[in-house]
Amino acid sequence: MSLTFRRGLTTMASLKKASKVVCIGRNYADHIAELNSAKPKQPFFFLKPPSSIILPGEGPVIRPRGVDMHYEVELALILGKRVRDHDASDLKGALDAIESYALSIDMTARNVQNEAKKKGLPWDIAKGFDTFLPMSKLIEKSKIQDPHNIELYLKVNDEVRQNASTNLMLFQIPRILSDTSKVMTLEAGDIVLTGTPKGVGPVVPGDVMRAGIRVDGKEIEEARIEIE
Amino acid sequence: MSLTFRRGLTTMASLKKASKVVCIGRNYADHIAELNSAKPKQPFFFLKPPSSIILPGEGPVIRPRGVDMHYEVELALILGKRVRDHDASDLKGALDAIESYALSIDMTARNVQNEAKKKGLPWDIAKGFDTFLPMSKLIEKSKIQDPHNIELYLKVNDEVRQNASTNLMLFQIPRILSDTSKVMTLEAGDIVLTGTPKGVGPVVPGDVMRAGIRVDGKEIEEARIEIE
Ligand SMILES: [Mg+2]
Ligand SMILES: [Mg+2]
Ligand SMILES: [Mg+2]
Repeated sequence: MSLTFRRGLTTMASLKKASKVVCIGRNYADHIAELNSAKPKQPFFFLKPPSSIILPGEGPVIRPRGVDMHYEVELALILGKRVRDHDASDLKGALDAIESYALSIDMTARNVQNEAKKKGLPWDIAKGFDTFLPMSKLIEKSKIQDPHNIELYLKVNDEVRQNASTNLMLFQIPRILSDTSKVMTLEAGDIVLTGTPKGVGPVVPGDVMRAGIRVDGKEIEEARIEIE
Repeated sequence: MSLTFRRGLTTMASLKKASKVVCIGRNYADHIAELNSAKPKQPFFFLKPPSSIILPGEGPVIRPRGVDMHYEVELALILGKRVRDHDASDLKGALDAIESYALSIDMTARNVQNEAKKKGLPWDIAKGFDTFLPMSKLIEKSKIQDPHNIELYLKVNDEVRQNASTNLMLFQIPRILSDTSKVMTLEAGDIVLTGTPKGVGPVVPGDVMRAGIRVDGKEIEEARIEIE
């Protein structure tokens, strides 16, 4: 672990003290197609409550009664500084604002979300149940030189369901930080989920989800999530 | 100020460190009618980011470009303990979980929200801009013996726009804490907005909003909000 990392503000436990978790929706074209959603002209986003976070070893994910629960594997950014009104063309500034990465699973009550969409109601219930945000260990920034060129995967019971490169993001990180921070000031410690590629689907009690990140084909140990 | 209050966890500054702000929608029948909304069979709710909070003296509210900005005056609960799976019939337990009250204005980008509703998108942008949650000073719990029987008001440029008793809430506080805490664990310090009565409307730069609470016809000093 590098000095830089150890000097950082964020520790695993402090993830749950994030002042907010901001999540980008529909950021991979192939995932938009599979949900029959409209392609957004600009990033849109929603919040998950920090109370939904579970850290490694804190599983399982609890399925609320009557809920069709879907996984969405996503790269998470942990910010190291306050960000406000970020310039969408500033890649270096965006990367500088990131303190570390993590892998995350944006668990979603799909039937609740679909009903909310139909009725024009908020998504916060569908996205915000306790245990609906499993996260990996923190990933030192130096291990992900280019966050727009890593591979995310998620398996259910050892069957690959999601597997895609982050180079498929519609809106890359500088644009994400720009659009979000023009609405709400992002604080040090805040968590930003960058969207999920295709392959989302249901899990039921007893299923085991395994997710990870590969960089240049090599697994990052800290990124592993294994959860029932 | 009583000993009880001074021993409390929450101070004004700590409001911004709330792990979440949970807001009930459509909780007054007359407000539902004015927005042509459907009456919910159960409370629904959404989150505002703590970054949207402004404390007394920190105004003005900033109107984002192109935004039709509406006020919604609401009674806010500040929780003093963790609440999970609260029993909807337990009034005493609900009141015990409250550490103090505040008055709040749930500022809303109405045109952004209307478009989100139409498209089935999240409300978080419409509700979450910086400065979109003006709050009053903390109100000692003893000053509000019955939170279901106080009067909320909001004036714009000295014209009364909202003025109603909290006895018009469709879902009272025990039910609110029950439904929300069955989805997401509420933490000590969390803020719960209980919905707005009729009379919501637009404000533009230069307008002055004044809001307050009356108990038995008497103004509570700490509850006053005055903001541009
Ligand atoms: Mg916090
Ligand atoms: Mg997602
Ligand atoms: Mg409201």
